[in-house]
Amino acid sequence: MDDDGAQAPAEVVHSADGHLAHGYLTGKDAYLKRLRRIEGQARGLQRMVEEEQYCIDILTQVSAMTSALQSVALGLLEEHLGHCVAEAVAAGGPEADAKVREASAAIARLVRS
Amino acid sequence: MDDDGAQAPAEVVHSADGHLAHGYLTGKDAYLKRLRRIEGQARGLQRMVEEEQYCIDILTQVSAMTSALQSVALGLLEEHLGHCVAEAVAAGGPEADAKVREASAAIARLVRS
Amino acid sequence: MDDDGAQAPAEVVHSADGHLAHGYLTGKDAYLKRLRRIEGQARGLQRMVEEEQYCIDILTQVSAMTSALQSVALGLLEEHLGHCVAEAVAAGGPEADAKVREASAAIARLVRS
Amino acid sequence: MDDDGAQAPAEVVHSADGHLAHGYLTGKDAYLKRLRRIEGQARGLQRMVEEEQYCIDILTQVSAMTSALQSVALGLLEEHLGHCVAEAVAAGGPEADAKVREASAAIARLVRS
Repeated sequence: MDDDGAQAPAEVVHSADGHLAHGYLTGKDAYLKRLRRIEGQARGLQRMVEEEQYCIDILTQVSAMTSALQSVALGLLEEHLGHCVAEAVAAGGPEADAKVREASAAIARLVRS
Repeated sequence: MDDDGAQAPAEVVHSADGHLAHGYLTGKDAYLKRLRRIEGQARGLQRMVEEEQYCIDILTQVSAMTSALQSVALGLLEEHLGHCVAEAVAAGGPEADAKVREASAAIARLVRS
Repeated sequence: MDDDGAQAPAEVVHSADGHLAHGYLTGKDAYLKRLRRIEGQARGLQRMVEEEQYCIDILTQVSAMTSALQSVALGLLEEHLGHCVAEAVAAGGPEADAKVREASAAIARLVRS
Repeated sequence: MDDDGAQAPAEVVHSADGHLAHGYLTGKDAYLKRLRRIEGQARGLQRMVEEEQYCIDILTQVSAMTSALQSVALGLLEEHLGHCVAEAVAAGGPEADAKVREASAAIARLVRS
């Protein structure tokens, strides 16, 4: 799975909804690395619970993992605003409004989660 | 891994700082199950980024994962208050104050993360 | 309420950084009303503390007030994305990138506060 | 209103649900001062919207106000855990469990708001 990016020369991918994923790729490997670390944190939490480590230490790890996740989300969001939303806005029309509303709803979910 | 609890009759574990982990065990399997699901969400996110799925869909998954993590944290915290902190408070003395301060600091990290 | 902008031609204000505040006006009265209610909640909290009401009831009010504030912030942010950021993006150039970065930083502060 | 505390020599107050508000009083004036500052922030936000100041500056103020509110909430919560919950736990019985559950629910609202 990890080799996928290296093997695929066609870095411009059309997703199901037709958006260009080009800009997205900029930091793809960095995102994957961060997400693998987050996956490792999830396994670490299981080990801590398995070994019945001290609750407060587990909670500290959960906070660290939540911060790491939020940081990934904020990075993806910035790329989304700078690419997908920007392109839709530049093109104008109802699609522009829809993209802004969609991004705003995603931001609301992040703020409230 | 799940059998661990069943095989080990000594369910009362003294952690490094000497607290009884007894009450903690009540929901141990349920916590492990939820954390394995969270680990699966972390792998799912990697797949979504690998396949360059739509940013907003990835953000929705991050929000769901953050909520799941918070829910685990709130459960652990409630058990911690009801057991470790309660025992320290019942015993009284400076240890009681220290446990309340420690729990409050953990809550602050959760609220701010 | 919407007529406000139409009747008052001088309401289009160029702020220090030169953005048109026009679109902003759409919901100005509604925002002021919500902020007055939030100010009232802040006074209500003082009364609760003054009267030494039950901690948990005060915390419930704080949570309600925080949610109201977040809701105002998310509304303002959506307008900002749909107007200021959209205009900058449509104009293109380094200003477009700067606006996206600035909005992303504001979102990060909201998510982390 | 501010004189209230000074006039009332009986600092141990029994609230409607019979809890001793004694410990609570420790920082009463400091809490009132912080809440008055928060009320001032709410008025400042109205002025900013009234004058149609730059969205991002308003959002920065909202984040500051949210942080100030959370900080008040975390302080009240720590006092609540150290007094009301601690007393209930020391007394034992179903009331102890109820207080822990009630505090945990308040924490959950704070984390999710």
